[in-house]
Amino acid sequence: MTKVRRVERVVALSKMLMDMPGYLFSLGHFSNIFGAAKSTLSEDMVTIKQAIEQFGLGTVETVSGAAGGVRYVPCHSEERMNTFLTGMAMRLAEPERVIPGGFLYMSDILFMPDLMVQVGEIFRTRFAHLAPDYIMTVETKGIPLAFTTARAFGLPLVIVRQGGKVTEGPSVSINYVTGSAKRIQTMSLPRRALVSGSKVLVIDDFMKAGGTARGMIDLANEVGAKVVGTGVLIATNEPEKKLVDEYLALLMLHDVDSHTKKIDIRPVF
Amino acid sequence: MTKVRRVERVVALSKMLMDMPGYLFSLGHFSNIFGAAKSTLSEDMVTIKQAIEQFGLGTVETVSGAAGGVRYVPCHSEERMNTFLTGMAMRLAEPERVIPGGFLYMSDILFMPDLMVQVGEIFRTRFAHLAPDYIMTVETKGIPLAFTTARAFGLPLVIVRQGGKVTEGPSVSINYVTGSAKRIQTMSLPRRALVSGSKVLVIDDFMKAGGTARGMIDLANEVGAKVVGTGVLIATNEPEKKLVDEYLALLMLHDVDSHTKKIDIRPVF
Repeated sequence: MTKVRRVERVVALSKMLMDMPGYLFSLGHFSNIFGAAKSTLSEDMVTIKQAIEQFGLGTVETVSGAAGGVRYVPCHSEERMNTFLTGMAMRLAEPERVIPGGFLYMSDILFMPDLMVQVGEIFRTRFAHLAPDYIMTVETKGIPLAFTTARAFGLPLVIVRQGGKVTEGPSVSINYVTGSAKRIQTMSLPRRALVSGSKVLVIDDFMKAGGTARGMIDLANEVGAKVVGTGVLIATNEPEKKLVDEYLALLMLHDVDSHTKKIDIRPVF
Repeated sequence: MTKVRRVERVVALSKMLMDMPGYLFSLGHFSNIFGAAKSTLSEDMVTIKQAIEQFGLGTVETVSGAAGGVRYVPCHSEERMNTFLTGMAMRLAEPERVIPGGFLYMSDILFMPDLMVQVGEIFRTRFAHLAPDYIMTVETKGIPLAFTTARAFGLPLVIVRQGGKVTEGPSVSINYVTGSAKRIQTMSLPRRALVSGSKVLVIDDFMKAGGTARGMIDLANEVGAKVVGTGVLIATNEPEKKLVDEYLALLMLHDVDSHTKKIDIRPVF
């Protein structure tokens, strides 16, 4: 094993920790890689923790005991979240985003990796207390941000499909009514995707009436799992009463004026 | 501005760099954040570069000149890629993955964030020389790995939809024949998703006959963009002749025996 300078070891350690958010590494694991004593590595962890906390970049948690270890936890300060969401609201309010019918073009933003990583970490910050076992979304546009949320938590992602797919094996399906268009649709989930008794956090890009989110709650119930929270990037303020009782929206869409191309969208604080 | 110890500054710097792979940061940007001279930050960059290269975790590139700066580039050593893909092939060969009809259940792996981050970085390593402007995929199962590829490159992701979607504005559509089932399907792309003249890297989870990949090439052509490469996580060895001339598969599926539940899947070296 080559001798590594402390500063280099600390950088490599940071990288390995941060590559797997939420994952609990034993100090023994790093001891094998770096040939350093656990006490030395403990000191390194304190340094890393101080460094990233100081700049609002997250934290490092230590779990003591035989099954213990250290893990990187992405979490954002309120200030950092507000700055980010204010910037995102401004981008989403660009007049050229208005599509005839009062829709908003936002795929470019929803599919922009760096932005979605931030959104995922914000959802992680907001929902950490729920301690979910899975992140669930429905295809298609919400997948990137549900994926980054799953990554920020260090959890598996479950994607509900529209219709049924033969290549997934036995599945459960439900019919649901999209709250906005009042159309009956089917969504399905492979039986083996969720373990019965598990806690599920639903994440999606957009909520109008909440029919899709309601469908995911029902679908999770069908396989004996429980939805413990629902988060969306954008919710419309109308209808005020959604089909789900509780949800968290990061941005609220108040109005899209097809005529003046004025879009009123604001962060929810 | 608080005075920061060097080792803490280097950790925070690493984190900021690695949070945005491929993004070119000016040293002035970091100079503002840390209150350190650019020459000091240059030395920090050398340290970071050495630290992560030493453990095969990627590299840091310096671009000189007025518009220059530094960027983190995820790249994997051949050894690291081979170890990872061998492990993935073993997981995909678990007998309980066989689904009647000779299909393979692999959604759990395709939606596992940590694994897909690695796959994205492997595609980045393999396709870096093509210098694409966009990463493109088609919904649904390939989205996570196309997303992580886009993130590893620091590029926007473009998701082709099956059918047309009113909420996306003007779009182009093509009909294509799925090579395996010989069904005619439609795929579409919002006009504004791709800039004419741009270079596109197609990434998908699975290729059998290559009809879907062929469709994406045609669709890109329709908007004046050019597909410069195609990468899939898994390709079947039959049919040997695919509908695309060139593609890179990370894993090759040789056989799925529904009866014995034996799956023959191997890394492509």
